[in-house]
Amino acid sequence: MRLTLFNEGRLGLVDGDDLVDVTDRLAGPGTPGPAGALHRYIETAARDGAARLDVSGLPRVPLTEAVLRAPLPRPGKIVGAPVNYLDHKAEMEYSTSIADLGVFLKANSSVIGPGQDIVLPYTDKRTDQEGELGVVIGRTTSHVSAGEALDHVFGYTCVLDITVRSGEDRSTRKSFDTFTPLGPWVVTADEIPDPDSLDLRCDVGGTTRQRTNTADLIFGVRELIAYTSSVMTLHPGDVIATGTPAGVGPLSHGDRVVLDIERIGRLEVGVDGSRAAPYEQRPGRRSG
Amino acid sequence: MRLTLFNEGRLGLVDGDDLVDVTDRLAGPGTPGPAGALHRYIETAARDGAARLDVSGLPRVPLTEAVLRAPLPRPGKIVGAPVNYLDHKAEMEYSTSIADLGVFLKANSSVIGPGQDIVLPYTDKRTDQEGELGVVIGRTTSHVSAGEALDHVFGYTCVLDITVRSGEDRSTRKSFDTFTPLGPWVVTADEIPDPDSLDLRCDVGGTTRQRTNTADLIFGVRELIAYTSSVMTLHPGDVIATGTPAGVGPLSHGDRVVLDIERIGRLEVGVDGSRAAPYEQRPGRRSG
Repeated sequence: MRLTLFNEGRLGLVDGDDLVDVTDRLAGPGTPGPAGALHRYIETAARDGAARLDVSGLPRVPLTEAVLRAPLPRPGKIVGAPVNYLDHKAEMEYSTSIADLGVFLKANSSVIGPGQDIVLPYTDKRTDQEGELGVVIGRTTSHVSAGEALDHVFGYTCVLDITVRSGEDRSTRKSFDTFTPLGPWVVTADEIPDPDSLDLRCDVGGTTRQRTNTADLIFGVRELIAYTSSVMTLHPGDVIATGTPAGVGPLSHGDRVVLDIERIGRLEVGVDGSRAAPYEQRPGRRSG
Repeated sequence: MRLTLFNEGRLGLVDGDDLVDVTDRLAGPGTPGPAGALHRYIETAARDGAARLDVSGLPRVPLTEAVLRAPLPRPGKIVGAPVNYLDHKAEMEYSTSIADLGVFLKANSSVIGPGQDIVLPYTDKRTDQEGELGVVIGRTTSHVSAGEALDHVFGYTCVLDITVRSGEDRSTRKSFDTFTPLGPWVVTADEIPDPDSLDLRCDVGGTTRQRTNTADLIFGVRELIAYTSSVMTLHPGDVIATGTPAGVGPLSHGDRVVLDIERIGRLEVGVDGSRAAPYEQRPGRRSG
């Protein structure tokens, strides 16, 4: 299944060229809150098992007429994998990798959906795209082995881990509002038997910057879930951004960023630099 | 008001030596989910305004007979302030402070409540206590000025920011399960007109290790909220740990950690080292 939110936060199932509105069937009654209807369904499925879905008779809207939203507008956690491809380690001249650095966290308030704009904070500091495979956790996960890790996955999506190149902690540099484009939907795990063999490509302004296969991950998806769960309990709906390959680079006002992952889909967002300001004018700066 | 969760997640108001069960009055019907009943009330109050509370006729339980829980068992975000006291900067021989480092994030899965145990992960790496004033956000907050920041606070609590001294990203070193003791309750902001003048003391194993006044914060509470909101939108129920003064030190199996903050209260937790293992045996390690 390909599941996402659309229009005013309805839960949609992609069926050919249509979105089937499965909100009432999968997310239950009442408003789902800021985490959204898909998050609620993932929590329900973790407790009661996945729904058997009959979409006949449900309302449909052509995909071309729907406004797609981030499938998980405010995940419980967004975990990131620093330096998880050797070619990215080389291009940044890093001396360490994820095996030394562990994982970092991004603010769950940084998510945007397809077609929205990444907002650049600074006129004079690089803000880079980092195209990544995203893993959506399906069950509460603690100290899981790599061999059993994929049993805990709900599905996969495209994630852009947008990053300022400045001196702050990673959580700051990666957590500005709009810095985690997510989507265009979550593909359930049954459709992706091996997440460690997916082609990934990221284009900016019509030029391909990043091209890899997830086979080149230092911590593959299984090991990354196992490692993360050895530190922190993962909950249904948590998102892990698995790390970025070589080819990160600065974004400019008006750029289109397109992330395409095999079997998952194509996430496209814009870039808005109109509100950027000099780094030296940021709140909290100290002189000298 | 002093509000917390108790027993099976009921919402309690401290009234003298009693807890008044205000769950039905403040948190509304239905199960509140993993974020808990106080989180739900904070969201409701953000939308509809604070409740006028008449506690007459509500069920009561003596504080000594209730099991207190973390008031916010899974906040939306937990923001941390690295190197936010000059004496801590000096003791760690850090060359930078929060003005250079920005903020970091802790996993919301790391919260425990009063009387629970901090679980040490490693036998041969220091795990330190860091006693801190915690700020609980009351309203959606983005790009707020320092002058208006306190209008966005729901209340204050005690936070221990437990930290492993190893080489990983702060988010990893500070996000192990049990690494964010919180409580014993949240004191609403109306009772603390100036959060930048509170005495704070942290004892471990009966010895005072940390003693400060929040007047010594580098980024005071107002500036810290303003800075954080310039990076990431803060939501009702988000928690900011404001940083720790000098006196951090290693925890050992059987220690009691007591954090006492003026006008707020006393948070006490234990330390469990029985499951610690050598650092070299951690998942994800690479040889050589």
